[in-house]
Amino acid sequence: MKAAPGKVYLVGAGPGAPDLITVRAARLLERADIVFYDALVHPDTVALATKAEKIAVGKRCGRHSTAQRFINKRLIDAAARYRTVVRLKGGDPMLFGRAQEEIDALQAAGIEFEVVPGVTAALAASAELGISLTLRGVSRNVTFATPRVGEGENTSDWITSVCSADSAALYMAAGQAGAIAAGLIASGMQPDTPVVIVENASLPDMTQTATTLGGLRCAPESIGHGPALILIGRVFRRAGVGSRNHALRHAALQESISAPLCA
Amino acid sequence: MKAAPGKVYLVGAGPGAPDLITVRAARLLERADIVFYDALVHPDTVALATKAEKIAVGKRCGRHSTAQRFINKRLIDAAARYRTVVRLKGGDPMLFGRAQEEIDALQAAGIEFEVVPGVTAALAASAELGISLTLRGVSRNVTFATPRVGEGENTSDWITSVCSADSAALYMAAGQAGAIAAGLIASGMQPDTPVVIVENASLPDMTQTATTLGGLRCAPESIGHGPALILIGRVFRRAGVGSRNHALRHAALQESISAPLCA
Repeated sequence: MKAAPGKVYLVGAGPGAPDLITVRAARLLERADIVFYDALVHPDTVALATKAEKIAVGKRCGRHSTAQRFINKRLIDAAARYRTVVRLKGGDPMLFGRAQEEIDALQAAGIEFEVVPGVTAALAASAELGISLTLRGVSRNVTFATPRVGEGENTSDWITSVCSADSAALYMAAGQAGAIAAGLIASGMQPDTPVVIVENASLPDMTQTATTLGGLRCAPESIGHGPALILIGRVFRRAGVGSRNHALRHAALQESISAPLCA
Repeated sequence: MKAAPGKVYLVGAGPGAPDLITVRAARLLERADIVFYDALVHPDTVALATKAEKIAVGKRCGRHSTAQRFINKRLIDAAARYRTVVRLKGGDPMLFGRAQEEIDALQAAGIEFEVVPGVTAALAASAELGISLTLRGVSRNVTFATPRVGEGENTSDWITSVCSADSAALYMAAGQAGAIAAGLIASGMQPDTPVVIVENASLPDMTQTATTLGGLRCAPESIGHGPALILIGRVFRRAGVGSRNHALRHAALQESISAPLCA
């Protein structure tokens, strides 16, 4: 006879560094029976699940809905066989984590679930830069947006959202940096608006590149190799002041996308 | 002779529940010599600093700049006397945490510092509700804003930011809920836009109230007693579906701000 169905935990792994996971998430991983983890989650974080079966799911980007449906099914199947099922996602599950698809599938199947929040990449990037996303008199709001549009989805007004915000963090944007900057400038943002590109936030190989929207417009379409955030807004004028370890790569990358290279 | 100056860690305590702090933050608290903590941080989180001198600073809201300057000075003084100084803030330090004032003061004094990010309240609220802040085809961006304006500061365009976003989380907003709703409706948002008010996100006495902008307009000016978030947007139409424990207070509070009470 089967045991009672298990519970599925949708868990945020945080921005990358294994010790930026929450205590609750770390404890859950320790007692997990099975863990389905995204490609971007740090191996040392996955390794916290000492007694679990560990299954890699998801692609780095452009995951198809078929794959998502397959993940949903695997979660439901696992809940019938295991007591503690963990779905481990980079950052926070509820911010660009496609958690809702999985929640809806679990609810439809009558499976108990719980979401454990995590530190999202923009907050880790802000911490590393030493630049607060909000600042009295300069930035009273910040928008978290993505220019990435799913298959069959309308181009949404992420540009309006970014133009209307004091500060912005663009997720999954580095693959189209030039087009993003051009779009924002065409919509009225000043070319001298400060921009920082942060790759691999919170990890030892993090890089930060301070530039402007005008500089970004001339960037190669794909920046770097890791997951990258584009931070935009007046608060980032002070980028570099708070930086500590990344001066060298910073300078190299800066040169590659500086304004004089712009046609 | 004095020891070499210490290092100041600006640490996010997370949304409230003590186990939603990061592993890095918990370890830092364990070895801290002195901790300056905000009023909203959970006592059990402060208690993680077993060997530290613990000093409460900051007010629940409307902290004055004089008080902020006093905190800055205490951090600098502490760094001259202690090796590990922790400044513990609710949520994440870089999102409505007034971290920049402290960072600038530390940098001006030549004190080494590091920011440890935390889970911000909106992510914890979203997790508890079981409603993702982003959702393909519905919400591709979310703005985190506050209608609170500092002394001598212009009224900023938080309304534009919220109106332009797919979803919004308003911090420090519950004290003026009716005015906020009226302002957003006057700026063109539909009165039937879904709203959820979440108080004490992640804590046992959390409450969630599902309503609409129209309903919120008739709310008493001050909602509840704990720190509250106002979540706005189409994704929150499903509020209640994912709720688990809070049905009773939910219903009571709902009644108190329901549309029929509106003049």
